[in-house]
Amino acid sequence: MTSMITIDGNQAVARVAHRLNEVIAIYPITPSSSMGEYADEWSAAGITNLWGGLPKVIEMQSEAGAAGTVHGALQRGALTTTFTSSQGLLLMIPNMYKIAGELTPAVFHVAARSVASHALSIFCDHSDVMACRGTGFGMLASNSVQEAQDFALIAQAASLESCIPMLHFFDGFRTSHEVAKIVPVDDEVMREMIDDRWVQKHRQRALSPDRPAIRGTAQNPDVFFQSREAANLHYQRLPDILAGAMERFAGHTGRSYRLFDYTGAADAESVMVIMGSAAETAHDTVAHLTAQGDKIGLLKVRLFRPMCGERLVEALPRTVKRLAVLDRCKEPGAAGEPLYKDVVTAIAEHVSSGGGRFAGMPRVVGGRYGLSSKEFTPGMIRSVFDALKTDHPPNGFTVGIRDDVTHTSLEWDAGFQTDADLQTRHAIFYGLGSDGTVSANRNTIRIIGEETDWYAQAHFVFDSKKAGAITVSHLRFGDRPIRATYLIGKGEAEFVGCHQAMFIDRHDMLEMAKDGATFLLNVPWPTAEVWDRMPQRMQQQIIDKHLTVYAIDAYSVAKQAGLGKRINTIMQTCYFALADLLPRDEAIEKIKASVRQTYGTKGSRILEANFAAIDQALAHLSEVEPAAAATSTRQQQPSVPGDVPTFVSDVTGRLIAGHGDDIPVSLLPVDGTWPTGTAAYEKRQLALEIPVLEEDLCILCGKCVFVCPHSAIRSKVFSADAIEDAPDGFKAMPVKGKEFDAGLLMTYQVAPQDCTGCTLCVDICPARDKSNLSRKALNMHPIEPVLEREKQ
Amino acid sequence: MTSMITIDGNQAVARVAHRLNEVIAIYPITPSSSMGEYADEWSAAGITNLWGGLPKVIEMQSEAGAAGTVHGALQRGALTTTFTSSQGLLLMIPNMYKIAGELTPAVFHVAARSVASHALSIFCDHSDVMACRGTGFGMLASNSVQEAQDFALIAQAASLESCIPMLHFFDGFRTSHEVAKIVPVDDEVMREMIDDRWVQKHRQRALSPDRPAIRGTAQNPDVFFQSREAANLHYQRLPDILAGAMERFAGHTGRSYRLFDYTGAADAESVMVIMGSAAETAHDTVAHLTAQGDKIGLLKVRLFRPMCGERLVEALPRTVKRLAVLDRCKEPGAAGEPLYKDVVTAIAEHVSSGGGRFAGMPRVVGGRYGLSSKEFTPGMIRSVFDALKTDHPPNGFTVGIRDDVTHTSLEWDAGFQTDADLQTRHAIFYGLGSDGTVSANRNTIRIIGEETDWYAQAHFVFDSKKAGAITVSHLRFGDRPIRATYLIGKGEAEFVGCHQAMFIDRHDMLEMAKDGATFLLNVPWPTAEVWDRMPQRMQQQIIDKHLTVYAIDAYSVAKQAGLGKRINTIMQTCYFALADLLPRDEAIEKIKASVRQTYGTKGSRILEANFAAIDQALAHLSEVEPAAAATSTRQQQPSVPGDVPTFVSDVTGRLIAGHGDDIPVSLLPVDGTWPTGTAAYEKRQLALEIPVLEEDLCILCGKCVFVCPHSAIRSKVFSADAIEDAPDGFKAMPVKGKEFDAGLLMTYQVAPQDCTGCTLCVDICPARDKSNLSRKALNMHPIEPVLEREKQ
Repeated sequence: MTSMITIDGNQAVARVAHRLNEVIAIYPITPSSSMGEYADEWSAAGITNLWGGLPKVIEMQSEAGAAGTVHGALQRGALTTTFTSSQGLLLMIPNMYKIAGELTPAVFHVAARSVASHALSIFCDHSDVMACRGTGFGMLASNSVQEAQDFALIAQAASLESCIPMLHFFDGFRTSHEVAKIVPVDDEVMREMIDDRWVQKHRQRALSPDRPAIRGTAQNPDVFFQSREAANLHYQRLPDILAGAMERFAGHTGRSYRLFDYTGAADAESVMVIMGSAAETAHDTVAHLTAQGDKIGLLKVRLFRPMCGERLVEALPRTVKRLAVLDRCKEPGAAGEPLYKDVVTAIAEHVSSGGGRFAGMPRVVGGRYGLSSKEFTPGMIRSVFDALKTDHPPNGFTVGIRDDVTHTSLEWDAGFQTDADLQTRHAIFYGLGSDGTVSANRNTIRIIGEETDWYAQAHFVFDSKKAGAITVSHLRFGDRPIRATYLIGKGEAEFVGCHQAMFIDRHDMLEMAKDGATFLLNVPWPTAEVWDRMPQRMQQQIIDKHLTVYAIDAYSVAKQAGLGKRINTIMQTCYFALADLLPRDEAIEKIKASVRQTYGTKGSRILEANFAAIDQALAHLSEVEPAAAATSTRQQQPSVPGDVPTFVSDVTGRLIAGHGDDIPVSLLPVDGTWPTGTAAYEKRQLALEIPVLEEDLCILCGKCVFVCPHSAIRSKVFSADAIEDAPDGFKAMPVKGKEFDAGLLMTYQVAPQDCTGCTLCVDICPARDKSNLSRKALNMHPIEPVLEREKQ
Repeated sequence: MTSMITIDGNQAVARVAHRLNEVIAIYPITPSSSMGEYADEWSAAGITNLWGGLPKVIEMQSEAGAAGTVHGALQRGALTTTFTSSQGLLLMIPNMYKIAGELTPAVFHVAARSVASHALSIFCDHSDVMACRGTGFGMLASNSVQEAQDFALIAQAASLESCIPMLHFFDGFRTSHEVAKIVPVDDEVMREMIDDRWVQKHRQRALSPDRPAIRGTAQNPDVFFQSREAANLHYQRLPDILAGAMERFAGHTGRSYRLFDYTGAADAESVMVIMGSAAETAHDTVAHLTAQGDKIGLLKVRLFRPMCGERLVEALPRTVKRLAVLDRCKEPGAAGEPLYKDVVTAIAEHVSSGGGRFAGMPRVVGGRYGLSSKEFTPGMIRSVFDALKTDHPPNGFTVGIRDDVTHTSLEWDAGFQTDADLQTRHAIFYGLGSDGTVSANRNTIRIIGEETDWYAQAHFVFDSKKAGAITVSHLRFGDRPIRATYLIGKGEAEFVGCHQAMFIDRHDMLEMAKDGATFLLNVPWPTAEVWDRMPQRMQQQIIDKHLTVYAIDAYSVAKQAGLGKRINTIMQTCYFALADLLPRDEAIEKIKASVRQTYGTKGSRILEANFAAIDQALAHLSEVEPAAAATSTRQQQPSVPGDVPTFVSDVTGRLIAGHGDDIPVSLLPVDGTWPTGTAAYEKRQLALEIPVLEEDLCILCGKCVFVCPHSAIRSKVFSADAIEDAPDGFKAMPVKGKEFDAGLLMTYQVAPQDCTGCTLCVDICPARDKSNLSRKALNMHPIEPVLEREKQ
């Protein structure tokens, strides 16, 4: 398995696209951005394409410009691609109609993302690609990192051969950002798949004064309709061409795909039809349930346009009686989502034209799932099959939410796990955005993927507040290919890493822990104090689930090693030691190698500090002995204070606590209108250190107030009597300036719960102690004494 | 019927929209432009809306900006609308998702037009509105000028009540530019239809510091899906709200509409489902065929989104066995067009969920028609019903073209006429773009509509070459409402007007004439010469069809009256006299009144010249006596010369001859790629006068060459021996300038067949004869002597 690589979906796709194109026109949009960034980086580094040319990467001022550039480059005969998502894709629609109408070979790689409606969302569903289904592009869905890479190549081959442009899409974040262990396609396979005669044909069709022709004309009613039908044969041929490309690809790689891939019982009566990453989870779930004797199956739709109803019907078992078609999008006002209507049409056409594949007309129902990356789990999939088996299967249902308004939602068993997932190892890590946890876990999964025989998967959940917000890393690995495209569930993790002490009081991390799991804590306390500082619930979970607990003061190790606040390699080293994935020395060697790869360009000082931290890590790691009973008086903090408006307790508070998934439809605004000022209830308490004023040095310039991105520093002018009852140590100083009356005071006050400890205020502060230049008028101080003093 | 008005669809819609809105954000795009122009004109003239406010009309730099302006104005609580088409609508898609997601009441009025694909087209189909069917907008189709006006009001009422934005669409050109006699909605009806409480509710939802709220947030996977489902009830309610608005409207006006309107046999077995102006023709055709006992019917879909499958099913007769669903769009690669799949889904859901409306599962097939304003006639509609009755009705068929490649097309009887059309009077007029024929016919139809009890319709066919190209005016009027949304067919016109003598040799105008029809000719020849100057085919048609022929030298009448080249009122006067629509004196009075209305602002000289021309017209009109036999040796000119490339003879030549409709699919490029240089074969011969050089005055400045928009003037330098054999009168002069050898000559040569007679060259020519300032170096001369000389 040494030939396998462990990369994310965007990189896997960009690798192929960069190798097969000459012009790459982009405008960055989440979650597709990194495809363009990789391509740009590779071209800048002189990495050439399959023909030895250097792909030109062009960033425009919007996706509309990128689409125009693609169109223009294609018309000059260049192999051209782009990467986009969501609104970016919408801006390309006008050009897409033309690119398709002109029968131009090209592949657009789309990390599918929700289109903004009542709210913007950076997360995944298929509303963006569905908005393009009328353009005349072929549309090919890939379901995993491996498929996204493979289909990037297959789509390009089929597009060049058929002259029909392809929209190749895969799920944003779930596939684009999932790190997975895959077999790379090498140059030989690409060479075999791309026939240079097609490239020549594309070149020959370029607009050129050497072969003058005109395109982009205006047509009148006399010939437009006929011309629009003139391309029919091309569309009729594309499915065969694509199936042929898949067969050739299988011949070269052993990885076999079909336009419609069926898996499950040969005599299935209930079949789910689905597209995108959810098909992976459905695959495992169907395998699990058919092993128990369920007559069910799964049809993965890969080629969505052109839609071949007859092939779809042929791919289904003859025994089918009921079909559930799941769409990852919602078109309000449509009587069913796009894939559902396609399947209904295919079945109805087959039956009513006398086709005899099925004993009767199968019942087809449609449902929605996974909008904006809503989880789609084995339990939800089982609930769909359960609903299908009822006498009156619901249509237009939803799954994954609780709809208490129009009652579309199915109930599901959140604890249901597939055999495949039960045989997989799970680890989960809680970090802060920018604290290095995610990059350490990327390295970890790469080491596991590339240094062991295990299959490996890493998925990262970011709060969209980005820096300073919580990040959760979900790692899976094991002997069998990993198809679990959902997060690690409650009670499933064998390892829980908490990289920030502040989470202990706020997040119920141990609900994720499996019985007998290991819990690793980074805390600034002596090991002996750790147990007593835990909230009571955490203690009880440790006892009930028989957890083994380890603690390390990683910040102090990092500081000693000269790493500042970078604790990621220290925590990574502890994880490898505790999880016993590799022989300890080998693991440490691999971690150092990955550090060398990541920080190699930043100088030897950084490298050596990291190596020192790694070597020191295990010496500072120690086991925490749980007591026999949970005796702590500490309780987990509520997400918002008790006395708040109803909306804040019902909605905002649950969002902050990470329980937004449980909020039912009835509690949410129908039109995206939210109350203002609720940030007042969200006390993030992220800072380990906060700025404190030195009133003898302050020159009252106010820059700290101006620069604070969270408005956590305020200045105030007041008369002396206003602070007569202020606590000891309250900082104030006389105001200078003729516009102020004499005797007025001023302060710069920091809100410790809102400050993120970013230090921008300290960095900008211009006032220094002349006798000690490192002392400014604003300096960072550890927060605990400040909080203690506030409590007084 | 004095309360009726005769206006086009755009004006009818704009009238309502301007009256019901406060902000109108536009960017002009054919064929929707005049809606914005009217609104702008009315606001500039101080015409207020229903509430006494002056609507603010804002033109942006593109439709993307217009959509953003609409979105912003709506968020501030202003009643806001826009008008657009085609690519313009595509640029609005991103904002449309947001406007709908935020449940914002607004109506977008769309004159539906093809989206550019293999070629651009300004003409009508539904590809643009279909590209928006996922946005969450309600979508309402109106089928005629009357409906477009009525639905503009109904849509606004329903949108305000439901908070769901509506896309109100009607067919570009066919409805937007058709002049029809309709009942206007007056202010009282508007007042009754629009409840001010809805307006207040809209105001209250505006973003305002007085009621702070936030919209346009970002949402994460935790709540996006639930929020997206939270609006379900609004969509479920919209059909009832809209049906209620239609009922109230019927109460006020007597004009009754339903979401799905069925017409035809109560026991129909074959039913057509259709949307847009074609439903009008289908209405007449179904009435005609059911009168003959056919068990057929028609379902007009008015509310396309939300699609209510159950209501659709309920609107169908229980006896239905076969349905043909016709879509005016093509989505290459889709297994059926949008309306087709909606109907299949509705029927399949009804039957498979045990609904008992039909004896069995009706067979549903889909077809495409009318792309880019391709004609859709009663004969085509009958062919669809005929196809439905066969044992194996074709699916995915086309009608209106000949598809000899993928054989999708149905055959049809081009001569089939409905009873309704047989009872209607038809007149057809051939003019040149900018010669005034179209505006005269607009006045004519207005006079007929407003001064008689007849229903009236005018539709104008423009070549997209615009000025200088042929225009054909199709006028219908009669006792019954006119639903014919297709052009006047061959052999149907009781009156044929030829406003330009040059058409005689080039266009087969009399194929349109009915037996016994009247043919009016504007020719510069004495009446006695007219017969002999006709081509032989025209003479034969006159004899065979028993036509009465009249001639007038309208250009000479116009010149004498001081009207220059404006012949429109002269020809209009002759038409009224010959067609005997009104008592002659009354007709003349009405024509003068309409002249006063049209030219009143241009000064009394213009008015008086027109009045003189009108008074003189009939004195110069005389009947042409046909001879007993067609003895002319003149033949109609071929559209291109005989010896041309195959593509030019097969395609270009047929396009120029006006027979592009007959070109089969196989002859057209599949990808919009056309050969260049074919303009060389299109000799338009439009000019009555062309510029001729006065070599003694020319200063060789070259401005005439530079300014000619058709490149019909070329300059050439040559040695004297090159023109030794030139014909007499060939104009040349010595070249001046030291860069030329002595003895060289130069000419400015005009291509008479390419020149359009626009006079730009003469206007710009700076060289004048000092003794006769009206004589320039370039002067217009009648073309006939020039052509005669060329022939020598």
